[in-house]
Amino acid sequence: MHLVAIGGSDAGISTALRARELDPTVDVTVVVADAYPNFSICGIPYYFSREVNPWQSLAHRTRADLEATGMQLRLDTLATGIDVAAQRLAVRDASGQESTIAYDELMVGTGASPSTAGITGIGGAGGLGPDDGVHVLHSMGDTFALERYLDEHEPETAIIVGAGYVGLEMAEALTVRGLQVTQLQRGPEVLSTLDPQLGSLVHDELTRHGVDVVTGARVEGITRESAGLTVTGVQDGDGFSRTADLVLVVVGVRPNTGLLADAGASVGAGGAVVVDERMRTGLPHVWAAGDGVVTHHRLLGVTYLPLGTTAHKQGRVAGENAIGGDARFAGSLGTQVVKVFDLVAARTGLRDHEALSAGYTPLSGTAIADDHKAYYPGAKPLSIRITGDTDTGLLLGAQLVGARGAEIAKRVDTYATALHHGMTVDAMSDLDLSYTPPLGSPWDAVQVATQAWSRQLRT
Amino acid sequence: MHLVAIGGSDAGISTALRARELDPTVDVTVVVADAYPNFSICGIPYYFSREVNPWQSLAHRTRADLEATGMQLRLDTLATGIDVAAQRLAVRDASGQESTIAYDELMVGTGASPSTAGITGIGGAGGLGPDDGVHVLHSMGDTFALERYLDEHEPETAIIVGAGYVGLEMAEALTVRGLQVTQLQRGPEVLSTLDPQLGSLVHDELTRHGVDVVTGARVEGITRESAGLTVTGVQDGDGFSRTADLVLVVVGVRPNTGLLADAGASVGAGGAVVVDERMRTGLPHVWAAGDGVVTHHRLLGVTYLPLGTTAHKQGRVAGENAIGGDARFAGSLGTQVVKVFDLVAARTGLRDHEALSAGYTPLSGTAIADDHKAYYPGAKPLSIRITGDTDTGLLLGAQLVGARGAEIAKRVDTYATALHHGMTVDAMSDLDLSYTPPLGSPWDAVQVATQAWSRQLRT
Repeated sequence: MHLVAIGGSDAGISTALRARELDPTVDVTVVVADAYPNFSICGIPYYFSREVNPWQSLAHRTRADLEATGMQLRLDTLATGIDVAAQRLAVRDASGQESTIAYDELMVGTGASPSTAGITGIGGAGGLGPDDGVHVLHSMGDTFALERYLDEHEPETAIIVGAGYVGLEMAEALTVRGLQVTQLQRGPEVLSTLDPQLGSLVHDELTRHGVDVVTGARVEGITRESAGLTVTGVQDGDGFSRTADLVLVVVGVRPNTGLLADAGASVGAGGAVVVDERMRTGLPHVWAAGDGVVTHHRLLGVTYLPLGTTAHKQGRVAGENAIGGDARFAGSLGTQVVKVFDLVAARTGLRDHEALSAGYTPLSGTAIADDHKAYYPGAKPLSIRITGDTDTGLLLGAQLVGARGAEIAKRVDTYATALHHGMTVDAMSDLDLSYTPPLGSPWDAVQVATQAWSRQLRT
Repeated sequence: MHLVAIGGSDAGISTALRARELDPTVDVTVVVADAYPNFSICGIPYYFSREVNPWQSLAHRTRADLEATGMQLRLDTLATGIDVAAQRLAVRDASGQESTIAYDELMVGTGASPSTAGITGIGGAGGLGPDDGVHVLHSMGDTFALERYLDEHEPETAIIVGAGYVGLEMAEALTVRGLQVTQLQRGPEVLSTLDPQLGSLVHDELTRHGVDVVTGARVEGITRESAGLTVTGVQDGDGFSRTADLVLVVVGVRPNTGLLADAGASVGAGGAVVVDERMRTGLPHVWAAGDGVVTHHRLLGVTYLPLGTTAHKQGRVAGENAIGGDARFAGSLGTQVVKVFDLVAARTGLRDHEALSAGYTPLSGTAIADDHKAYYPGAKPLSIRITGDTDTGLLLGAQLVGARGAEIAKRVDTYATALHHGMTVDAMSDLDLSYTPPLGSPWDAVQVATQAWSRQLRT
């Protein structure tokens, strides 16, 4: 049995690890387009903040670690085509040499590529790129290009287009590096995965650390002027323009579907490849997982919500099934967390508009609760916004913002676990959560918030 | 409708608050034996460590806060008898005046009293007490007595008998206060609610901070000698004796059942009053909750496991039902957490011996997992011990020990929520838990530990 996994990131490596873990007799080859298998893409901002050094530390596992599990790595090798009938994968190595690899089972984890959201002037022939100070950030190659630009040009100012997870983390990192950062966000508030009421707390944290945040700003183009790189667009119906020494465009990703689509796979939600919960593509002996495929969501059905945690889980399912198992991806809840300077913001499940579109009758309410008993030093207020269904009482989602150190990341996990089991908001008070005055309250903040929601519903 | 609650601690106040919240027309009287309603008994050690000051801060709510909800407080009033047929409660006030209070519904939350575990020489006529430097610690009265002794006698050395939650917290507090502390523990390791393998980490933390920990030491008596207070007993078959300026006996509690037993209620597990999941005592119009009653445990059935969190939940159920509701106490999982100096230890669910006695075929295994990605500064190893059932694969329990700040308190809550829903160990990998490199891993430590358990089971 020869299992070939395409992609050296979360999905591909998880597939390979799981297959080798369950059956050490399986031959596993991982085809990796670059020389950086199993690197933590989520960690890149901390390389720029210089909290992670050297860059090699970003590897979840070293090449030697990976090979010690018995998997073969084909680095700097681009997968160029799948012959489904012949069960052969065409590849091209760094020297341009083309060849094919025979497989019994194939897992495609080609991931996603950074979007540039139709902004003119970037990339392509004649467009601005890394050498000009216009960057995207999704791979180790992008990382080295940006670090080189910072090193060689010593930019003093930066514009970050986008204020999602990577945009916020990079705003912090570049600020820590000494750059004056302007952050442009298309929507009404930063971190648009949260309701603006909570996103505004993140906005305040950015401002407090000197980031110039501009919301409602739709970027249309980037040009090189004598004064630097100029970003132009529309804000509140008027044109705007900002100039800086460096521009970083971090506005999301597009799934890389070419390889599978060319082989006959279907494309669905978000332009991603359709897979079922067993990570089957519909093509015989071809599995897929990660940022290139649709996401089964426990509350929304099939959507596209690329996350590293999901890619790990999907890859693990694909690895088990490719060698004859019968695992199912249990579904995402979109659980996410981000640290922005001294603040942590997290969410899981649905917000009002998502719940409405999924057929619920949602109500959302925000409570402020201390992370631990107020009498014990260092208590911090958490803002917790609960979304529940007014018809059934079901918990639908939770958003949390508060100080780093207030156990927000693991409090959102309690909600995620509750959502996994379809709990009602009221039933959250039944959970036997831990308490000691320095770390919690007899009713944990998690429950203070759900009890507040229930009172809001009654009134 | 007149609801009378006996007890100013968690159960009584929760009953009163819930009743008033759901029906503001209900008359509620709370009969409180001392002058300190709604004080956080769990916070007392932090008063001794001087992290909480003044002692009034320990109140969850002030008297004015409580009265603002519409409840009446009868302070310094001891409940002396229940006339079930007549629906009247006999009480005695601080001046010795006896009277009766008519009730429509009565909730008894008389709690528990500190045990002295048969140690001779303590309390009673001729026994040593607070004025001699021999203390227990369960009420604000005990707190004032100990503080007065510390203030007036300036003891330099202390023996703490017991190494449970309060014992450990007081070992820290008195050490912080500058006393040389000797901690005597009857069992083979401190914090006997954890397996010794994890308890030993807590032991090490105590030692590191200068606490002299003596395990396997069964205390038999306390006497006053010229050199101070001498504690004698047996260790490994030999007699031992230790002398100090102060002795604190914190070896657990006994439920206060006199009032209800005299009224005809049954006594069950742990000598506590029998109640059903609706907090009914079997006596008409008489409810009970808190440390004086048996505990419905989701995995063990009916047991006795007094905890503040449980008393809050039971009191809330009693308050709802006393005014005509139909709430049920969903059951405890014994979730607990304690901070000891810079370490946090937590548990939920069952350990091997408990699981065996409940009819399971348990296996336990310990994994070490970082609280967040190792490449990001400050990662701390967590020791997580998973107990699962080898027949069904069910998760049965989890124990965690690690550094303060590593989100242990809220990680145990993920396990508690999973246990609430009867998850298997394997299914823990399906949970969509949060991840960002400074605060977690793509597979959270919670899942790293359950995956390690599954590998252990396979081999």
